[in-house]
Amino acid sequence: MKEIEREKLYDLIIVGGGPCGLSASVYAGRSGIRTLMLEEYACGGQILNTFEIKNYPGFENISGPELASKMANQAEALNVEIKYEKAIDFDFSQDIKVIKTQNGKYFAKTVILSLGASPRKLGLEREKELTGKGVSYCAICDGGFFKGKRVAVVGGGNSAIEDLPYLTNLASKSYLINRSKRYRAQNILLEKALRLKEHGKVEFFEDTVVVKLLGDKKLEGVVMKNVLTGKEQELLIDGLFIEIGRIPNTDSLKGKVDLDEYGYIVTDQNLMTSVKGVFAGGDVIQKSLRQIVTAGSDGAICATNAQNFLNQNYKK
Amino acid sequence: MKEIEREKLYDLIIVGGGPCGLSASVYAGRSGIRTLMLEEYACGGQILNTFEIKNYPGFENISGPELASKMANQAEALNVEIKYEKAIDFDFSQDIKVIKTQNGKYFAKTVILSLGASPRKLGLEREKELTGKGVSYCAICDGGFFKGKRVAVVGGGNSAIEDLPYLTNLASKSYLINRSKRYRAQNILLEKALRLKEHGKVEFFEDTVVVKLLGDKKLEGVVMKNVLTGKEQELLIDGLFIEIGRIPNTDSLKGKVDLDEYGYIVTDQNLMTSVKGVFAGGDVIQKSLRQIVTAGSDGAICATNAQNFLNQNYKK
Repeated sequence: MKEIEREKLYDLIIVGGGPCGLSASVYAGRSGIRTLMLEEYACGGQILNTFEIKNYPGFENISGPELASKMANQAEALNVEIKYEKAIDFDFSQDIKVIKTQNGKYFAKTVILSLGASPRKLGLEREKELTGKGVSYCAICDGGFFKGKRVAVVGGGNSAIEDLPYLTNLASKSYLINRSKRYRAQNILLEKALRLKEHGKVEFFEDTVVVKLLGDKKLEGVVMKNVLTGKEQELLIDGLFIEIGRIPNTDSLKGKVDLDEYGYIVTDQNLMTSVKGVFAGGDVIQKSLRQIVTAGSDGAICATNAQNFLNQNYKK
Repeated sequence: MKEIEREKLYDLIIVGGGPCGLSASVYAGRSGIRTLMLEEYACGGQILNTFEIKNYPGFENISGPELASKMANQAEALNVEIKYEKAIDFDFSQDIKVIKTQNGKYFAKTVILSLGASPRKLGLEREKELTGKGVSYCAICDGGFFKGKRVAVVGGGNSAIEDLPYLTNLASKSYLINRSKRYRAQNILLEKALRLKEHGKVEFFEDTVVVKLLGDKKLEGVVMKNVLTGKEQELLIDGLFIEIGRIPNTDSLKGKVDLDEYGYIVTDQNLMTSVKGVFAGGDVIQKSLRQIVTAGSDGAICATNAQNFLNQNYKK
């Protein structure tokens, strides 16, 4: 313990500044415990990629970046320290947990892991190379680059279907590529997309997957395959928006806390992980509904239970 | 079924317009199902009694009524019908559920029960008037307003004892007022509180009840009475946290859905009650953390699962 630098010892360190981490920060700040939030890029997590949020109770319509900034300001006003550093390693073997960033080590009596999730890749050759050169995982971020061009969206869930009206406004021609005829998207989104289809603004390819990315220095098209007939066909496009789900950001946590077979953190009903004093919430854990308000709820529960843990295990 | 008036048949009826019901309305509205919300008084539930909310992520500072009104407007903009009627009887015996109000009957394929809970009151004169002006039923909600001030907690159960370390971090001086020498709180919580007492951070008044609230525009103190000696004494405080229990608003639901021994609705992990198609969330159910954001999360989960239930059980 003698190696612990006291000024780097916190009651609570929150790792990840998405809606769960931000909500946890607000609750921790309110409770008066010494709290640090570590965020790699910018506060907000996946909502930074959301142009319009209409289902977070209290805001009829707000952009993701604006909501994120409101939550971050709220946490900072409550004296939560925010450092823009990436947590690269964790040592949970002792009572005092150690979190290593590129800048050094931080020490914590309790930890909240709110690392979120990242877009799932198609897993195609040259996918990484062409990312940012026609291949994108965020229509809101990159749609503007495809004004008057031809774009396709891959997927059948909320994220994919939500992209269609947005992209149709920008692109000269839009396509949807879905591996089946079923859609996991909400009715209200799907109906809007089907109206666009009826008006000839979007063309749907169902039972279809992308098997190859075409183009040398930038994306010029894809080869699609019909999964029922096996027939392949080329589609010339400038932009491909891949919206096929998310994977939890838990690579750096393997062997540190229990993960399920998909890599999500396993928590108990108090959102405590397999390590005492280490809590987790938001898109990084096993859960059924992944929304801003459910992540916010997780954050509140994590912070409250972290505080209970401090009260039970540390004398004042 | 022939008695069902079609115009009074909804895909979903939400009973109770607090944060859970309002969030459920937003989600139901977004999903496009025909939704009615029944609220007895005004939307907001317990938050209507909260002057300043600082722990709902996204709002650094908002009044309860203002947040409630934002959520209600958001739901109405999504075509959710709101009727200000009290649900007085429920018939869940058939697939189509019947909800009776003073104005008549409504019919629903799915129901969300978000009737909330009411804090148990001391029953003192001017208690209602001073609520939000020094008298509070929620330390986590309102504790932050008493930094450097003098506060007392009334009660001897978990909620009361849990408040002490929390408030001691904030207040200049804390007191506990308990009607007996016995405590229903868990030992681990009690031990922590007793350590605070030993260190002079909390003063305990046992066998003591509050008999009078002092102060004109805001709380300035209380008169306490020792129940053994009958002796009265004044205590000057800025905040009084009354934690003598909460009562779920489930009187009208007895025999309709399973309740626990305290009257809270029992739900499964999908927030479905013992009746198929009837969901419940917020303060009316068994749960550990009762906050706006956790109620909002419940509402989102209830509405999403109600929609899934409709998709599985009713053709479009």
